[in-house]
Amino acid sequence: MVAKIRRYQSPDEYPFTSPLPEPILPPLDYPPLLHPKQNINVNKQLYDAYLKIVLPKITQSLPDKGELRENYGSSALCDVECLQSLSRRIHFGKFVAEVKFRQDQEYLTDLIISRDRKGLEEAITDTEVERRVLERLRAKAEAYGRDPWGEDGVGNGVIKQKVDVAAVVEVYQHVVIPLTKQVEVDYLLARLD
Amino acid sequence: MVAKIRRYQSPDEYPFTSPLPEPILPPLDYPPLLHPKQNINVNKQLYDAYLKIVLPKITQSLPDKGELRENYGSSALCDVECLQSLSRRIHFGKFVAEVKFRQDQEYLTDLIISRDRKGLEEAITDTEVERRVLERLRAKAEAYGRDPWGEDGVGNGVIKQKVDVAAVVEVYQHVVIPLTKQVEVDYLLARLD
Repeated sequence: MVAKIRRYQSPDEYPFTSPLPEPILPPLDYPPLLHPKQNINVNKQLYDAYLKIVLPKITQSLPDKGELRENYGSSALCDVECLQSLSRRIHFGKFVAEVKFRQDQEYLTDLIISRDRKGLEEAITDTEVERRVLERLRAKAEAYGRDPWGEDGVGNGVIKQKVDVAAVVEVYQHVVIPLTKQVEVDYLLARLD
Repeated sequence: MVAKIRRYQSPDEYPFTSPLPEPILPPLDYPPLLHPKQNINVNKQLYDAYLKIVLPKITQSLPDKGELRENYGSSALCDVECLQSLSRRIHFGKFVAEVKFRQDQEYLTDLIISRDRKGLEEAITDTEVERRVLERLRAKAEAYGRDPWGEDGVGNGVIKQKVDVAAVVEVYQHVVIPLTKQVEVDYLLARLD
């Protein structure tokens, strides 16, 4: 359904599979913000990282039997939603890189021409911004990952944290931020093609 | 996809459309908690209420043109998610009604036999519980409907409420609670078939 309502024609949505079914809606005219020759999609890497890094942090390993199986369907839907949200967030790196390129075109052009991947990564990295992203994420995981009404059902209970805030922050540190930077560098390397 | 991974075979998921595609996964053995003869589905009414009551509370009426069209795809996905979540919540009424039936079988059986819809509605209504549901909902809409990090991007800004808390509470008052009670009464009326 997601493909059929032309979600993957939007410049901020990237599919994990191909080929896609044809949309049932007519195409839209999106403003051409990105370089037309780039074709970056890191969903394969994101999918691997989701299996190897994200899931072990947020799930328990349990035997494949009985009532647990009743949850496979809803788990699969949650996986799809998570993967698609992470993918969208990570590929926003293209727009960030485009803005950085326009702001500092001369210096970045030199790095691109000399294929200086390390120099490009340094040029796009702002550790203060990364620190703030993680702090903001922590605040959100805390606020959204608990029932503000408390556990006793009448509004006086202890408010328990239901989401592992440290795991969420680590996913950003070890998966989302590195992949976003990779998208930015890949985008810049393709920016003059 | 939702039907294909057998979501609508789960006793807490109700489809809005039919016929459904066959699941690609084998069926599960769910414990038989509900009366086997009941077949209640109020999704048609929920869909009408969503269009007439919910959407006017949470959206603006804007001209159908230009950049707005770029949001139709993601809006449609949000609509589906909202409708399915509300439907699940409302049809939980069947399980609530089953528990109430087992707790007070004699009295409810009399009301069912005499088809006393009003009496059944009174029997299942607990205004104190309803009040607490709305208070808890208000607390959740407040906590989840704002950016806890503030608007200035560095963690010192004013925290603005982004979701209209009163609208969320009204949706529960005028749509979710009445439809849940209707499901409970309809379920009880079918309970002895």
